[in-house]
Amino acid sequence: MNSAEKSASVSSHELPTGFRFAGATGGIKASGKSDVSLIVSDRPCVAAAVTTTNQVFAAPVQICRERTPRATCRAVITNSGNANACTGQEGIDDAIAMCGQVAKLIGCDAEDVLVMSTGVIGQRLPMEKVQRGIELASEALGSSERDFLAAADAICTTDSYRKTASTTFQTDGKTYRIAAMCKGAGMIAPNMATMLGVIVTDFPMSGPEAQASLSRIVERTFNRVSVDGHTSTNDTVVLLSSGAGDWVTSDEAAAEFVEAATDTCLKLAKLLVADGEGAVRFFEVAVEGASNDADALTIAKCVAASPLVKTAIQGGDPNWGRIVSAAGYAGPPIEVGKTSLSIEGHCVFRDGRPLAFDATDMSGRMKQASEVKLLLRVGDGSGASKYWSSDLTEDYVRFNSLYTT
Amino acid sequence: MNSAEKSASVSSHELPTGFRFAGATGGIKASGKSDVSLIVSDRPCVAAAVTTTNQVFAAPVQICRERTPRATCRAVITNSGNANACTGQEGIDDAIAMCGQVAKLIGCDAEDVLVMSTGVIGQRLPMEKVQRGIELASEALGSSERDFLAAADAICTTDSYRKTASTTFQTDGKTYRIAAMCKGAGMIAPNMATMLGVIVTDFPMSGPEAQASLSRIVERTFNRVSVDGHTSTNDTVVLLSSGAGDWVTSDEAAAEFVEAATDTCLKLAKLLVADGEGAVRFFEVAVEGASNDADALTIAKCVAASPLVKTAIQGGDPNWGRIVSAAGYAGPPIEVGKTSLSIEGHCVFRDGRPLAFDATDMSGRMKQASEVKLLLRVGDGSGASKYWSSDLTEDYVRFNSLYTT
Repeated sequence: MNSAEKSASVSSHELPTGFRFAGATGGIKASGKSDVSLIVSDRPCVAAAVTTTNQVFAAPVQICRERTPRATCRAVITNSGNANACTGQEGIDDAIAMCGQVAKLIGCDAEDVLVMSTGVIGQRLPMEKVQRGIELASEALGSSERDFLAAADAICTTDSYRKTASTTFQTDGKTYRIAAMCKGAGMIAPNMATMLGVIVTDFPMSGPEAQASLSRIVERTFNRVSVDGHTSTNDTVVLLSSGAGDWVTSDEAAAEFVEAATDTCLKLAKLLVADGEGAVRFFEVAVEGASNDADALTIAKCVAASPLVKTAIQGGDPNWGRIVSAAGYAGPPIEVGKTSLSIEGHCVFRDGRPLAFDATDMSGRMKQASEVKLLLRVGDGSGASKYWSSDLTEDYVRFNSLYTT
Repeated sequence: MNSAEKSASVSSHELPTGFRFAGATGGIKASGKSDVSLIVSDRPCVAAAVTTTNQVFAAPVQICRERTPRATCRAVITNSGNANACTGQEGIDDAIAMCGQVAKLIGCDAEDVLVMSTGVIGQRLPMEKVQRGIELASEALGSSERDFLAAADAICTTDSYRKTASTTFQTDGKTYRIAAMCKGAGMIAPNMATMLGVIVTDFPMSGPEAQASLSRIVERTFNRVSVDGHTSTNDTVVLLSSGAGDWVTSDEAAAEFVEAATDTCLKLAKLLVADGEGAVRFFEVAVEGASNDADALTIAKCVAASPLVKTAIQGGDPNWGRIVSAAGYAGPPIEVGKTSLSIEGHCVFRDGRPLAFDATDMSGRMKQASEVKLLLRVGDGSGASKYWSSDLTEDYVRFNSLYTT
């Protein structure tokens, strides 16, 4: 991803009505960067959340699971710098206290506040600093783009840049807005990655509709990218809808929302991978011809996760052997005699046999590509899927080998 | 693994009777190192083989599958420097021709010769050089340890040292010998790893017995180690028994053979991981308390494969968060409240909560350990398993990022 594309994350955003945003500095981070992010809905809004599949999950994840979907959500409070994970009952109490403080400040039931955390695991939250940050954030709430960006900045950890995206779409003769933010960059010293995301929209939907839509959106975006395949204890994506729920939208309109939100989140997901620690280059693995889409996804994910493929991408090495063999051990059946591979649009392996190609020229194309495209056909099936990943670099190893505990 | 342990691979070996060995240089390798290895059984011997699970498999793998198990095997011919993979029907013809040439030279049916290859994939074998190597090897055959070691040297590729092991065991009042060799070091430029192994013994068994025993041996040894999880197109392990098949051994004796051979192959498997490209340190992941052994193995393998865990081992970082969270996303159910972790015998995480420990001291222990031991208890179940892996280093990335195609 080149700088032009990265800068898309700071282009102007049209924000949905009904939400206010703030970022503040409570002092949780030693760096002094903002570490408390608050999003408030002026009226009760519909909220849905998807959370980590890790059996070891953080206290705020448990709270989000218990409180979604719901139609009376008023706020999402997020702290960065401490994940509040592996902290036992005290951690649960701290997460509940964060929600309670926000509820008092904005005037709502504590149950109507959601909470997210990201950072070091295994340590209690420094609650005085968290409380200070929440106070400051509640005083800074605003509905301008500057406020939205401040909230997006405050959820970042090792991210090298803020990650936001937005869009508008028309349906049923109305115009709706979607704005979203996320954070994530691979690892957070001294522990593991966390991906957090918030999607706000004025498109109306019920709680169950929001939950179903969010699951479909995440499955095709944040669940299609990987920096290192290490699932965090804190991963959470929240969808907030301020749309009036007193009228029902058509199924077509709901589908259009999912499509628009998917496009927006895919942009964020790619920014997340491109910002993977140590990542220099990122790549797309498109698989076609599998028995079904699920098999295609399994194969694409396996190719994208192979350290041999990731180092080949890093080196600009059109190493078809590593890619084809990764497809061969992914699990789903492939027709080797009908397996073909294109790198950056050039076929280098067709029907199970390598083709002659100018390796030096191909290497140059790979090194210049902002997103190296691999297209792998594994048979005559109708199954197709895509997956995105970052390369594996010496910087990644250096960063994560540093003695940091 | 320290140098003392590594040197075990070149300690003296007691070889089973009935086999002759040779290594020769046909010129397949640009380096000029030996690249043709020949093992001959003076009498028809029992042969079994296990091969790669990769759907993209090399020509010699197909030949080995077709010809095992069998009770009339006379030889195994191996070339290094070219994998004869993704070479189509011509590759099959070349592999068959290698066997045919050996059969003529030693006087047996071509069907009684097995073949293995390792090296670059996607290129035809340089048959003149292969044939020259086979001729030289057949003239150099001998039954001394020097001959055995020459055969072991000739199967190596990027290995930094030869990998051999042997043992003797007594059963039914008789003494039997097992000698084994293997190669493998992660990657072979410009393509993927290949693990090859040969086990020779004078313990008598039938073809089906040999096949069943070899599967059990490999499952607990070579299938329990990983450098990068990338399954090769050429992986093959062959078991040869020169024992007279005219009498039946007891089940107890057969079990004792499996145990002795497993100990021998586990030594080789560890040498293989310790020699992983760029590997500085290697580590054992022991999982206990799982629902069953299969679940324990899945969890151990997931922890051992995590880039975050591998880089932590590299950095001497007692990073319990990375290890526990990897167990959390492995798949099999774990009881987080009953999950505990010990690093080098020191408990750092007990019943779902981190313990206070001297991180600097622990880091020192990890850096000094020849084999860092991780013991993870995930509940009260009876399932237990072990897995071995190497750390992830900048050298690994540097080696595999080099533009080599």
